[in-house]
Amino acid sequence: MNSQGYSIAVAGATGLVGRTMLKVLEERNFPVQSLTLLASKRSAGTTMTFKGAAYKVQELTHDSFNNIDIALFSAGGSASKEYAPSAAKAGCVVVDNSSAWRMHEYVPLVVPEVNADALQEHHGIIANPNCSTIQLVVALKPLHEAFGLKRVVVSTYQSVSGAGNKGVEALEAELQSDNPNVKAEGSPFVMPVAYNTVFHTINEKYGFSEEETKMLNETRKILRLPDVKLAMTCVRVPTIGGHGESVNIETVKPAPPQEVERVLSQADGVIVCDEPQNNIYPTPRMSDGRDEVFIGRIRPDTSVENGAYFWVVSDNIRKGAATNAVQIAEALVKHDWLAIKPLPAGASL
Amino acid sequence: MNSQGYSIAVAGATGLVGRTMLKVLEERNFPVQSLTLLASKRSAGTTMTFKGAAYKVQELTHDSFNNIDIALFSAGGSASKEYAPSAAKAGCVVVDNSSAWRMHEYVPLVVPEVNADALQEHHGIIANPNCSTIQLVVALKPLHEAFGLKRVVVSTYQSVSGAGNKGVEALEAELQSDNPNVKAEGSPFVMPVAYNTVFHTINEKYGFSEEETKMLNETRKILRLPDVKLAMTCVRVPTIGGHGESVNIETVKPAPPQEVERVLSQADGVIVCDEPQNNIYPTPRMSDGRDEVFIGRIRPDTSVENGAYFWVVSDNIRKGAATNAVQIAEALVKHDWLAIKPLPAGASL
Repeated sequence: MNSQGYSIAVAGATGLVGRTMLKVLEERNFPVQSLTLLASKRSAGTTMTFKGAAYKVQELTHDSFNNIDIALFSAGGSASKEYAPSAAKAGCVVVDNSSAWRMHEYVPLVVPEVNADALQEHHGIIANPNCSTIQLVVALKPLHEAFGLKRVVVSTYQSVSGAGNKGVEALEAELQSDNPNVKAEGSPFVMPVAYNTVFHTINEKYGFSEEETKMLNETRKILRLPDVKLAMTCVRVPTIGGHGESVNIETVKPAPPQEVERVLSQADGVIVCDEPQNNIYPTPRMSDGRDEVFIGRIRPDTSVENGAYFWVVSDNIRKGAATNAVQIAEALVKHDWLAIKPLPAGASL
Repeated sequence: MNSQGYSIAVAGATGLVGRTMLKVLEERNFPVQSLTLLASKRSAGTTMTFKGAAYKVQELTHDSFNNIDIALFSAGGSASKEYAPSAAKAGCVVVDNSSAWRMHEYVPLVVPEVNADALQEHHGIIANPNCSTIQLVVALKPLHEAFGLKRVVVSTYQSVSGAGNKGVEALEAELQSDNPNVKAEGSPFVMPVAYNTVFHTINEKYGFSEEETKMLNETRKILRLPDVKLAMTCVRVPTIGGHGESVNIETVKPAPPQEVERVLSQADGVIVCDEPQNNIYPTPRMSDGRDEVFIGRIRPDTSVENGAYFWVVSDNIRKGAATNAVQIAEALVKHDWLAIKPLPAGASL
């Protein structure tokens, strides 16, 4: 670790995740020597504060990354696609929260509790997984090590903040509206989300949503289990923050609930809260503002050999995005893994 | 069918389901010759209208059922436990919406599209299944006949109206409150439900909720598949009406999506709406006020042999309660099945 601290940039600083990245850097006392806030032309000029000091947001350009050590990107997929390679070329390590680079062969996709070691092999761009994937793999990794995963069935209960500020504003506007049957102006959803459930974008009949496909591909890459059997249904519900996931697992070895609880209690980044008889279990509200993944409703699933259920909730803006990105930066710094490895001949980002 | 029509009573007439029963009787033009509205002492005296005429609600007592042909009960479990046997003794057939009688050996548990024939064997009390079970079995029955069910995994997205008027009022009050972290006064839920997800009552660690246990037991009884393998997680979400269910099935024969869609399209009481690429799929809002069960998101589940997914939504107050009860009454009348069969020696209700 550099005793002087690091030059950090946040690209997409004015968005919901960008603002939370700043908050998390401050809370976790990340060694920031200098801070550069970047955003689209539209948002440039905004003033934001970090540790009591004011910073003016600058326009994100190809030249924004000279002398920056680490850039946390949350400016949308097309900005990441365009500017992350320029940053890496300038010697800056990008931790990208968009989906643009996640499945790229030369981009590690990392949840520090699960596969921090993958950070050793980066070429200047590291991808932050999708929110609904992060909390799932934090739970699945220790369970796979203990019992061996055979099949996982997941149904999600995802909050509107997964679609950013616009998602939150759309829900609030529809709840206040005299006619909540009409979608709020500027809503990122395809229909009203107030008092409703909606799916993410689906491109074909009998097809999966983009969110579901992300969950499958990203889980396989992070767990390094390219054939793991995963069935997933991703649903948006009218909560503001905190994604819930109802999970059924089938394992190679028996996974009695006491053992599942013991394994998860000892897992990094997990808090088991499971006294349902006393109404103590994870909820979106209780996850608000927290960095951990909360697990409860552990119980045996006797509808299959070696089956178990659990319910997992995490703050999708924090552990599902901002916190995970900052944890990646922390791991890079702690292990002195900032050096950008050259790409193999013929490969490119 | 009696050309004069039938003497009908509605017990619990002032509740959310009771009021909807009246509306459904009217809409479906059930042959009502005379109507008696019953409720607890507290609600007796209220005036309600049916087909333009005013009716005064009377107090529910053991003597309320003389000369009544059919009584639709939705007055809560303890009232059903207490008064349904008196009604049956007076020669009145009870269709009971509470959970009090559902698992009784001598009480048919009926969803007309699924097991109307079970109505032939009643002894004066017929049970209406739980809302989340009804819409599930309407979908599972034709799929079992076509493909043979091996295992079903369900996660529910249940609206607050499942807990009656008090559930709806609690959500609305919390959404309007300055501090939605505090549960609304009179809320039937264990914690705030606005912007949150909560579970139904759970009595032990590693245990299932009462709602989950109902779904298992009732599905097995209705489908007459006492060993069917069913895994279920029941979740309350902040929608007002319309329950969603994410379902994964594993079948004996292959169940390709085109075949699943064909089978469901031909099933009684089902509307398939499944053009997700055009944002057409079932939602709680679109089910509002409808009597059918809506199914979409049909797709192959390759994580298991012969697997398929679907998403099912229905108006929990109508098909999940009031409409199903009225449909039972319609079947009794149509087939002339009102006669109360004597119980076997030694048996009792």
